[in-house]
Amino acid sequence: MKKIAIFGVGLIGGSFALALKKAGAVEQIIGVGRTIASLERAKELGIIDVICTSSADAVRGADLVLIAAPVAQTEAILASIEPHLQPETVVTDAGSTKTDVVAAACRALREKIAQFVPGHPIAGRELNGPDAAIVDLYVGKKVVLAPLPENAPADVERVANAWRQCGAIIHRLTSQEHDRVFASVSHLPHLLAYALVDDIARKPHADVLFQYAASGFRDFTRIAGSSPEMWRDISLANQAALLQELDAYMAQLAQLRAMLAAGDAAAIESIYANAQQARHNWVRTIEAAEKQGKQGGD
Amino acid sequence: MKKIAIFGVGLIGGSFALALKKAGAVEQIIGVGRTIASLERAKELGIIDVICTSSADAVRGADLVLIAAPVAQTEAILASIEPHLQPETVVTDAGSTKTDVVAAACRALREKIAQFVPGHPIAGRELNGPDAAIVDLYVGKKVVLAPLPENAPADVERVANAWRQCGAIIHRLTSQEHDRVFASVSHLPHLLAYALVDDIARKPHADVLFQYAASGFRDFTRIAGSSPEMWRDISLANQAALLQELDAYMAQLAQLRAMLAAGDAAAIESIYANAQQARHNWVRTIEAAEKQGKQGGD
Repeated sequence: MKKIAIFGVGLIGGSFALALKKAGAVEQIIGVGRTIASLERAKELGIIDVICTSSADAVRGADLVLIAAPVAQTEAILASIEPHLQPETVVTDAGSTKTDVVAAACRALREKIAQFVPGHPIAGRELNGPDAAIVDLYVGKKVVLAPLPENAPADVERVANAWRQCGAIIHRLTSQEHDRVFASVSHLPHLLAYALVDDIARKPHADVLFQYAASGFRDFTRIAGSSPEMWRDISLANQAALLQELDAYMAQLAQLRAMLAAGDAAAIESIYANAQQARHNWVRTIEAAEKQGKQGGD
Repeated sequence: MKKIAIFGVGLIGGSFALALKKAGAVEQIIGVGRTIASLERAKELGIIDVICTSSADAVRGADLVLIAAPVAQTEAILASIEPHLQPETVVTDAGSTKTDVVAAACRALREKIAQFVPGHPIAGRELNGPDAAIVDLYVGKKVVLAPLPENAPADVERVANAWRQCGAIIHRLTSQEHDRVFASVSHLPHLLAYALVDDIARKPHADVLFQYAASGFRDFTRIAGSSPEMWRDISLANQAALLQELDAYMAQLAQLRAMLAAGDAAAIESIYANAQQARHNWVRTIEAAEKQGKQGGD
């Protein structure tokens, strides 16, 4: 590709840029963002070649546009580029939710919606900003694409191919499937971890409680160290699916509560044992895949 | 000390033995247990000096007896040693709950209850059995003692001193305080993690869900990899305090659910941000303590 424009040159957008440069897959990367300091830092780090503060200039002649800014900005960014979007440009995003992004893209891009291929790279670090960007963030990681019925297969393939050149493995889900899956295995766990730490922190003897919290608690609550603004946005963006998962979980807790109140040892053990077994099988599958990935990379 | 008897020579009892031997704090360690193979392995590993299958022989002339077997066995073990318990012997335990152990000890030891000093070392590994025992398991870790009004100060000090010689830091709580604290920061998180994994595993599309679960989910559910039998026993042993914490958490979830359903971004963010801040402060305190501990140990 000749030109790629990236809106948001932090961990996600910056790592995408570094990987594509390393792969020799792009001639020029344009960085766009709200904070000049971040863009200058990204240029200094060799993440982007050109700083651009105008959406019109950024997308003119671009083969690919990646929106990697906070999801709350997606619609405004898409609206700002729509008038300048030429037919040969494909736009994708990296947002953690998809049905809301598709709705925003439909409003913002209107007749040009076919040029938008929704995406979600499943990778991260506990750091943010251009300095957090690393060349191998996506190696062996999943990128979920949720193509629209309007998308031309070649456009979807252009996005898929860019991610593959970053070392990622492409998966496809509908945006509804995507949001249900991530409500279950990511958004709900974040909400539960935040809820527990907040619950403890508000108790009058919170300092005593934290004093005795150990490594199990530390792992259990690690995700409650994530950005509150980002997870507030994700929770609300995926409101319907998250409410559904939360209700299922609250019903599960009510059931466990009844077992505990009744002193039903066998029922409690059957829940705990089923969970332990399922997690064990899951971890074994991941570890086997990781091993295979490493061997394949040799 | 001349003689220590340890009931249960796995991770907890075995590491206690190894640390005391290294400190030169004991002449002879007697191992007692239900499985001869474990006792033989413990002897092979140099954890214990003598295998004993009779409670009478084990406790005769012992300065200290540690019960480190599964908590469900505590009462039976105490009952078996009671007739042979001489006034100079102090008995302690390593159970994760305390009010139920105290009740069991009162029933089993009767007039000899003053010789029992309840304890709980806050240390662990994801491994079990004699082979999991390591000499430095307790270095810098907390051991909570929950002395009874009946205990002689010198007897409490004998137990405290043994743990100190393992490198542990002694804390004191009443057994009620202990059980409330650990219901909150340990027992409830385990129940929540088991509940989530079980909930997901029972969904018809569980395989798809697990496929997209990532490192955040892995950390969040790590404690659901723990022994179901052990955590069933702990949950039931600490039933009252755990129900109280579970109810508080369910009320917290109901509140968050209402905020989410109402799309109340500010309220959701205030919960998430308070949790993130509290966790951040807690982790900073731990890390400072760890650093200090390491410096002190140099």
